[in-house]
Amino acid sequence: MSTEASDTLVSPPTLGEGLSAAAAKVNAAMELLLPQPALIYGRVQAAMRYAVFVGGKRLRPYLILEGARLFGAPEARALRAAAAIEMLHTYSLVHDDLPCMDDDDLRRGQPTVHRKFDEATAVLAGDGLLTYAFEVLADAATHPSADVRCQLIALLARASGSDGMIGGQMMDIVAPEHDFGPADVIQLQRMKTGALFEFSCQAGPILAGAGTEDRDRMRDYARCIGLAFQISDDLIDVTSTAELAGKAVGKDQDMGKATLVSIHGVDGARREAHRLAEQAAALLKTYGPAADGLRSLPFMLLDRRS
Amino acid sequence: MSTEASDTLVSPPTLGEGLSAAAAKVNAAMELLLPQPALIYGRVQAAMRYAVFVGGKRLRPYLILEGARLFGAPEARALRAAAAIEMLHTYSLVHDDLPCMDDDDLRRGQPTVHRKFDEATAVLAGDGLLTYAFEVLADAATHPSADVRCQLIALLARASGSDGMIGGQMMDIVAPEHDFGPADVIQLQRMKTGALFEFSCQAGPILAGAGTEDRDRMRDYARCIGLAFQISDDLIDVTSTAELAGKAVGKDQDMGKATLVSIHGVDGARREAHRLAEQAAALLKTYGPAADGLRSLPFMLLDRRS
Repeated sequence: MSTEASDTLVSPPTLGEGLSAAAAKVNAAMELLLPQPALIYGRVQAAMRYAVFVGGKRLRPYLILEGARLFGAPEARALRAAAAIEMLHTYSLVHDDLPCMDDDDLRRGQPTVHRKFDEATAVLAGDGLLTYAFEVLADAATHPSADVRCQLIALLARASGSDGMIGGQMMDIVAPEHDFGPADVIQLQRMKTGALFEFSCQAGPILAGAGTEDRDRMRDYARCIGLAFQISDDLIDVTSTAELAGKAVGKDQDMGKATLVSIHGVDGARREAHRLAEQAAALLKTYGPAADGLRSLPFMLLDRRS
Repeated sequence: MSTEASDTLVSPPTLGEGLSAAAAKVNAAMELLLPQPALIYGRVQAAMRYAVFVGGKRLRPYLILEGARLFGAPEARALRAAAAIEMLHTYSLVHDDLPCMDDDDLRRGQPTVHRKFDEATAVLAGDGLLTYAFEVLADAATHPSADVRCQLIALLARASGSDGMIGGQMMDIVAPEHDFGPADVIQLQRMKTGALFEFSCQAGPILAGAGTEDRDRMRDYARCIGLAFQISDDLIDVTSTAELAGKAVGKDQDMGKATLVSIHGVDGARREAHRLAEQAAALLKTYGPAADGLRSLPFMLLDRRS
């Protein structure tokens, strides 16, 4: 029922426009915030800017901006938190692409940072983006209350730390050595990609001074869409490989990595993703039409490239 | 004159004991603070602990603890800031040692993190330590005032960011492409090692709620001892190489890197380091015997291994 409601209330173009508008705003904010390449050591700052502006859907900033709007936090403050999460997300991609990690030459059709610059610069640029995310959050312009700023910093550090995103990346690396069941795969995804979604969905209510109930609801919403997003990614991996290479298994399975698609099969995973999207939409029912964008987001994520 | 005063008031053994005591305390604090290796992704947390506990003088924690004592901040709070700076310093060493950076196999006589574990784990462990430093500072246990915590976080982020330590490391990497003069070398050292010294010397007064004058004086002291420390490192590099390899130039010069030793010569650099140590000691004259440890520190740094 909640699915039908969101389907009829919001048409996909509106959501697409919402995402584009959020992306344009956060890009402008990052353009102003990111340090300009300085004279002798400017290479690292040029690499930070390259990594950030090479592309991206700006999905996490969108979640922050929509959450801020829903609970009534000023957009100027939300944009700083949105810039911080995108810098932090970008650092994780830069380090993930390194030769010792996924060894990727291209991201979004462009050379990865260590290809465009060099490996040492890529390591430093990642470090710089991670560090700068915290500097942006700690500044009084993010929120007049230092207590709110510390809440955001602590939440982001936990979400992206060794018991969050970094732990998830470690789990991904050791995955081929283990025989992962569904619970392990869900834990991996919740840490690797879900944790930053959880931060992004809670940042708005925190900036607005919303209560625990609202924050918890947004966190639960984040868990549903994070997992649905990951399943849709895995589905694209399998489908795309099947079409291009004429085989039914994709990159993840070749590397011995269990995904919810490899465990449940394509149809089972697709059903699970839709169930999660409906669960996410149902969680936001209480907020009415103001939450239309967030409510239809998981369905749009499922429909992309399919 | 100030040199004589500090020489007669404090004997080197006392300072050595002070450093050892500070090291023991901050080690105990980090033992409690650092996450325990968790089941499947515990490898990254084991690497974080290995990197931190493989050794180290704990010079930066000592500066924080002494600064806190001098201005009256509780030691329990100072120990959290001391743990944070040591984790952050350790992350910079882990990433610096990577094959794409300095490619070092040993640190303090033990295998570097990427040798003990692997490169991917070393990248993630460095990221984890950097992130955790901010999580520790953001916690209310560091200081009841969120404003003070945000001050520390902002100061540390700036000191260690792309216009601080990271920029200094970038400058170090591009150094062979440039013809560095004394001003460039001083800028490099001030960014690469000096910035964390400046944070360490200011953290105590900030935790104690000391005024701007005290904070600025401690910052100036940090600049003097940071540069003196670096010169003494460069002198050791040259002297050690001269004795072992029978030539007058060391590793830095072989790599085309200018240092204050290569620019001013051994005697000139030694004179400059002593001038800086005296200047540092003079800055703290106003604090009397309570600052004896900090006042004699630069002289001890100059005398090590010589």
